Amino acid sequence: MAKPKLRIIPLGGLSEIGKNMMVIEYEDDILLVDAGLMFPEEEMMGVDLVIPDISYLMDKKDKIRALVITHGHEDHIGALPYLLPQLNCPVYATRLTHGLISVKLKESKTLANADLRILPPGGKVTLGKFRVETFPVCHSIPDSVGLIIYTPLGIIVHSGDFKIDYTPVTGNPTDLSRLAQVGSQGILLLMSDSTYAELPGYTPSERVVGEALEHIMIEAPGRVIIATFSSLVSRIQQIIDAAARHNRRVFIVGRNMSEIVRMALDMGYLKAPDGVLARMDELRGTPHNRTVFITTGSQGEPTSALVRIANKDHRQVHIIADDTVVISATPVPGNEALISRTIDNLFKQGAQVLYNDIAEVHVHGHASQEELKLLMNIVKPKYFMPIHGEYRHLCLHAKLAQSVGIPKERTFVMEDGEVLEIDQSSAKVDGRITSSNVYVDGLSVGDIGTVVLRDRQMLARDGMVVVIIAINRQTGKLVGRPDIVSRGFVDTKEYNDMLDKSRDMVAEYLDRGGDHPADWSFIYTKVRDILNKFYYEQTKRRPMILPFMVKV
Amino acid sequence: MAKPKLRIIPLGGLSEIGKNMMVIEYEDDILLVDAGLMFPEEEMMGVDLVIPDISYLMDKKDKIRALVITHGHEDHIGALPYLLPQLNCPVYATRLTHGLISVKLKESKTLANADLRILPPGGKVTLGKFRVETFPVCHSIPDSVGLIIYTPLGIIVHSGDFKIDYTPVTGNPTDLSRLAQVGSQGILLLMSDSTYAELPGYTPSERVVGEALEHIMIEAPGRVIIATFSSLVSRIQQIIDAAARHNRRVFIVGRNMSEIVRMALDMGYLKAPDGVLARMDELRGTPHNRTVFITTGSQGEPTSALVRIANKDHRQVHIIADDTVVISATPVPGNEALISRTIDNLFKQGAQVLYNDIAEVHVHGHASQEELKLLMNIVKPKYFMPIHGEYRHLCLHAKLAQSVGIPKERTFVMEDGEVLEIDQSSAKVDGRITSSNVYVDGLSVGDIGTVVLRDRQMLARDGMVVVIIAINRQTGKLVGRPDIVSRGFVDTKEYNDMLDKSRDMVAEYLDRGGDHPADWSFIYTKVRDILNKFYYEQTKRRPMILPFMVKV
Repeated sequence: MAKPKLRIIPLGGLSEIGKNMMVIEYEDDILLVDAGLMFPEEEMMGVDLVIPDISYLMDKKDKIRALVITHGHEDHIGALPYLLPQLNCPVYATRLTHGLISVKLKESKTLANADLRILPPGGKVTLGKFRVETFPVCHSIPDSVGLIIYTPLGIIVHSGDFKIDYTPVTGNPTDLSRLAQVGSQGILLLMSDSTYAELPGYTPSERVVGEALEHIMIEAPGRVIIATFSSLVSRIQQIIDAAARHNRRVFIVGRNMSEIVRMALDMGYLKAPDGVLARMDELRGTPHNRTVFITTGSQGEPTSALVRIANKDHRQVHIIADDTVVISATPVPGNEALISRTIDNLFKQGAQVLYNDIAEVHVHGHASQEELKLLMNIVKPKYFMPIHGEYRHLCLHAKLAQSVGIPKERTFVMEDGEVLEIDQSSAKVDGRITSSNVYVDGLSVGDIGTVVLRDRQMLARDGMVVVIIAINRQTGKLVGRPDIVSRGFVDTKEYNDMLDKSRDMVAEYLDRGGDHPADWSFIYTKVRDILNKFYYEQTKRRPMILPFMVKV
Repeated sequence: MAKPKLRIIPLGGLSEIGKNMMVIEYEDDILLVDAGLMFPEEEMMGVDLVIPDISYLMDKKDKIRALVITHGHEDHIGALPYLLPQLNCPVYATRLTHGLISVKLKESKTLANADLRILPPGGKVTLGKFRVETFPVCHSIPDSVGLIIYTPLGIIVHSGDFKIDYTPVTGNPTDLSRLAQVGSQGILLLMSDSTYAELPGYTPSERVVGEALEHIMIEAPGRVIIATFSSLVSRIQQIIDAAARHNRRVFIVGRNMSEIVRMALDMGYLKAPDGVLARMDELRGTPHNRTVFITTGSQGEPTSALVRIANKDHRQVHIIADDTVVISATPVPGNEALISRTIDNLFKQGAQVLYNDIAEVHVHGHASQEELKLLMNIVKPKYFMPIHGEYRHLCLHAKLAQSVGIPKERTFVMEDGEVLEIDQSSAKVDGRITSSNVYVDGLSVGDIGTVVLRDRQMLARDGMVVVIIAINRQTGKLVGRPDIVSRGFVDTKEYNDMLDKSRDMVAEYLDRGGDHPADWSFIYTKVRDILNKFYYEQTKRRPMILPFMVKV
């Protein structure tokens, strides 16, 4: 009989690994952690979102005991509307995360059939042969947790996304003492957040930003406009607190930001002294140096309020002299150009703009190297798997592990879809399941594949040319001149002569030839070759060429 | 009579301002500084390069006295093959820059008609009513200069791209004493490099990297592969020096790197002790811990040697255990994702990778805030124009200027195409010339405009659908079923039924209607609307729809 084994499989996160979903399997029980989405990379043209490929789970649905969510960020909950109807298992989350998931499922009309359950930080639940206990961690959204997973082969600790902040603004510090207690029992496997494994030292406390915000409230001669993530409730709390202390009123701009603020207030995650929060219709009566706006758009998102403001395209807010804009965030990789452009546009309108490169207006939500080492020291795991980060971050995190005494051969730097198998005496990476990126484009999930993307890339680079050829049904001879239309290829006025000449070339070939009058695929290929060669000589471009034959 | 005026016009640099060309005009004399190119931004699909728009100069060619080049980087010389045949004026440059320009013009077959002249650092030349003196500056390529331009209205100082390095590896430090001498005569206008105006403090000396390289040569257990810019001759010098000291041999990988190294050796800008540089055929006989490769690819360029190595696609070099790869560069904005992927791929093959986020293996070539202030203090200009940087960098540089006592009203933060007019008593921004981005795509310069780019963007997002409708010439009735072909829109197998249904919808409309049988533009619009609506309902995508009518 085969020895019982734990199988751990990270799933789907584009260049980041184990970010969007983690599969933990023991005999007939499967536990899932997180169900997030990623935003597409540049060459994934037209794709809206990317979600994990759960085809591996499709014939094992009856074994899935639950999906446990560590926190309410998109890269951990965003795939639920797509995946939950297929997985159809209970979802455990803390109260705020539960609230955010509910909103998300409601929007996508998948809430009715969802089995959502609240598991508070420190709560425990038995799920098949697993027992899961959550512990609070600090991160850039309240109510984040890590997981202590008791399995028949030992205890797994999953850090979630975390940092160690001894003076958090909202919620509790990361529960190091509970981890130390559990650590003393012996931990089989630690899976830990590698996002900032490149960064030496310690990540500063969220409070550092509070001081910077206070200075800004005091010194800004006019209005203060602060852009941040709507889920970064502790930042919003600090803005409200600083505004209250310096007698400014706070206006929330934008639908998404307003919704999250209302929810956080209702649920008690956010507190505002009476009279600090203002309605937009009170704006006119508020002096400039008593005004603060909170808005989204810190990533340069084209439809966000801040970008609209920067483009003079916002209904309610326009930049005026003496405005101070604060970008209280750092760029998510890939967004750098959008953010730069937004900052440039705000400066052009005369605003002073403060951003992280020139002022301490943001701290991030992930542990730096010393914190990562601290966690490993407390947990003292037998095996270690760095997760949440690009491959190089995992490698650097693995090196940190070696520096605190976790041997290389017990450290597993994995790629998505690889399977870590652990039995009572050993652990090894053994095989790989089918796992690819699933693209969401519009309503469709998964139909966009290599062919469609390659076509889009080709169309994007040099455009396309359609050639319409009318052929006499009886004689097989060309009727009239071939018609040629191009889009995205050349300036059709300037290149009129060239396009015209190419019509003649096709006509000439068809008139001359005729040895394969019925063999359309041969003609098709030949016409494409002729035009490809001619256009490339003339322009050094290679448009997609689509010949059509119509029999008349 | 109008008072004689100086007109200063920055031209063409996409988001960076005054980067690619500067026009300095006084009565009947025009002096141009630099002729560079920029790489396209993400939404400029299929565009290869972007060059300055010189249409303003086209009817003033007889007034252009010369083009003076500050240094040999692409963003300062790269547009010469496109612009020089039109401008047809003498080009002044230092010796290395002259050499690089010659190679470039030779490749593009425009060298024969070019009038290239060498002006060494410290050299002087009279150009119409201007007298130009160059002064050496430190930058990330040897033989860089700034300009002292004597005009009838006063002296202009143009910093070029510069940093202040008291211990440069090659060439001379930035000539502060000459600037101080000239400064004491009174400077009318300072134009200064703003690229790193965000960065507090001083930029470290190039020598700092030398120490890091020495450590790497000592500690790396196997081969060392170093990627950097081929023009960063001082870095290449330091690699050669460190290799020589630690008994390693240096292999130059890649055509571009080999050419530049050979040229720099020939011209004396690079020195290699006997026996350090090796031929590739000596690789087999060289022990791993005696081997160093120098290669391009530090920006993740898809065709570079390093990226080929990372993708297991290089003819001569493959990653083996114990390889140490050093990325001795920082990402040029926009290249972050390409570089990340390259680093990840190198790690996946088992290399140790050192890059600037985790090791001090690069210093940049531009002045930080304290150096910028130093220059302003020495030059003490009456007017100040920050150049070379995005708009926010110019704004920050302007604030630095104010902090050292240059009043705001004498500081001119400009956009490309704006005209600064200076007369004997005043200066002001007065108007704007026609200036846009000129796109180079393949062989063509300037034909790619808004329409072509918008089409490419649309094609890239949701692909396209071609509809072929055959109409009876006599009756105006539909013949057969309309034909529909899509590319980059949907998976045609999965969406076969939808595409089929859409053929029927078009047929139905054409059969039913017929009230405008001859009005093709009406039918065209209507068919597009029907399909647009249907496809959007079914997929939430909006492909480009191209109906064609063939009369049979």
